Amino acid sequence: MKILLIGASGTIGSAVKAELAQRHEVISIGRTSGDFQVDISDSNSIRKLFEQTGKFDALICAAGSVNFVPLADMNDSDFELGLRDKLMGQVNLLLIGREYANDGASFTFTSGILNRDPIRTGASAALVNGALDAFVKAAAIELPRGLRINSVSPTVLLEAMGSYAPYFRGYKPAPAADVALAYAKSVEGLQTGQTFIVG
Amino acid sequence: MKILLIGASGTIGSAVKAELAQRHEVISIGRTSGDFQVDISDSNSIRKLFEQTGKFDALICAAGSVNFVPLADMNDSDFELGLRDKLMGQVNLLLIGREYANDGASFTFTSGILNRDPIRTGASAALVNGALDAFVKAAAIELPRGLRINSVSPTVLLEAMGSYAPYFRGYKPAPAADVALAYAKSVEGLQTGQTFIVG
Ligand SMILES: NC(=O)c1ccc[n+]([C@@H]2O[C@H](COP(=O)([O-])OP(=O)(O)OC[C@H]3O[C@@H](n4cnc5c(N)ncnc54)[C@H](OP(=O)(O)O)[C@@H]3O)[C@@H](O)[C@H]2O)c1
Ligand SMILES: NC(=O)c1ccc[n+]([C@@H]2O[C@H](COP(=O)([O-])OP(=O)(O)OC[C@H]3O[C@@H](n4cnc5c(N)ncnc54)[C@H](OP(=O)(O)O)[C@@H]3O)[C@@H](O)[C@H]2O)c1
Repeated sequence: MKILLIGASGTIGSAVKAELAQRHEVISIGRTSGDFQVDISDSNSIRKLFEQTGKFDALICAAGSVNFVPLADMNDSDFELGLRDKLMGQVNLLLIGREYANDGASFTFTSGILNRDPIRTGASAALVNGALDAFVKAAAIELPRGLRINSVSPTVLLEAMGSYAPYFRGYKPAPAADVALAYAKSVEGLQTGQTFIVG
Repeated sequence: MKILLIGASGTIGSAVKAELAQRHEVISIGRTSGDFQVDISDSNSIRKLFEQTGKFDALICAAGSVNFVPLADMNDSDFELGLRDKLMGQVNLLLIGREYANDGASFTFTSGILNRDPIRTGASAALVNGALDAFVKAAAIELPRGLRINSVSPTVLLEAMGSYAPYFRGYKPAPAADVALAYAKSVEGLQTGQTFIVG
């Protein structure tokens, strides 16, 4: 399969690449790094990406930013980044990318644990993750040509605990290699409309 | 209790009013109707509303629009209404309204069944409902002064089947009076961070 992997240089993306590159052609994409560059928060940038990559069999997005701010200090502008980048960025990868998707191709997006098990400062992250998990469930039933869509919802990664530990006391971290398996299940299996929970 | 009810003239709102006005002072608010007017998609309008109503013990929102469009015809602009109106409108009612909320006051928002049981044309509705249910769960743990927040997620209402039936074949509708009970549980009970499912 030809797999487009957005966020390939990241904590999750590099593990996904290690898992899938054993069996497939993985094209690494990042905001600044990789074989191609894209800013998922910008639809024009997404359009340009697909003009460069051409058709594909699977698209994985392991990228997306949100703001972490104590609820007491939040106003609506603190939600904008999450809505524009992690949420609509991934929605737009489907809306724009479907034209370039071969029959039976899959889209795999990344949400995360915070809508299931919230933390302080996580209101925007929870909102975005809940929106993504719901979107894949609803979009799946309307996709033509055997196209599939899933999300992966990992707990905090072991490899990220260096900086994230203070926010995730009591959470059992998952090794990136275990998280990568969920992406392989989404890409190489046949399920659609699912959220694969890891941890 | 002094209860602010946004969407009081609507299918859900009028049943909520009938249930709660038996025991409480219910202030009816609508975009064009009611004791006070607000457009929840506009933060300035929300600020003006609270300047007029003053402090309250409970706020209920049974309002909020999204676009229903076949996924095949959607682009990102079709998601804007749902994000600005039903989603961030309700989020902003919390972010702005908390200043006017008495200790122990509750916020009750409306999501809906479509993130749990999707229909054709429902991708934006599902995304928004999933975001709202996740937001209340995450925001609840950070609220001070005994403030509470829940969502009510109803199936399609019996009273709405006149126009909605073609979109909801096979769905068992709930009477508005049953849906109204979930709002009473949220306002008059003590739970927080919950999504009360009806139907
Ligand atoms: N790390 C965790 O513990 C964890 C747990 C659950 C969920 N998640 C979610 O998983 C996703 C990835 O997390 P991560 O920790 O692996 O990220 P990371 O290590 O910070 O890496 C981010 C990757 O995404 C790319 N990227 C960032 N913004 C982008 C944009 N606007 N457009 C295109 N590419 C962009 C970066 O490219 P460049 O390197 O070229 O800039 C990089 O390859 C995030 O949405 C995060 O919320 C992470
Ligand atoms: N009806 C159902 O079967 C059903 C099922 C599940 C979920 N829901 C959700 O429940 C909510 C209410 O639905 P409904 O069917 O009861 O609505 P509805 O009958 O159309 O009534 C809408 C109410 O909200 C007010 N309103 C509309 N837009 C507003 C805005 N931007 N700012 C402030 N007020 C606004 C209207 O005020 P004016 O009359 O003054 O214009 C009216 O009071 C919606 O979010 C809907 O998605 C409905």
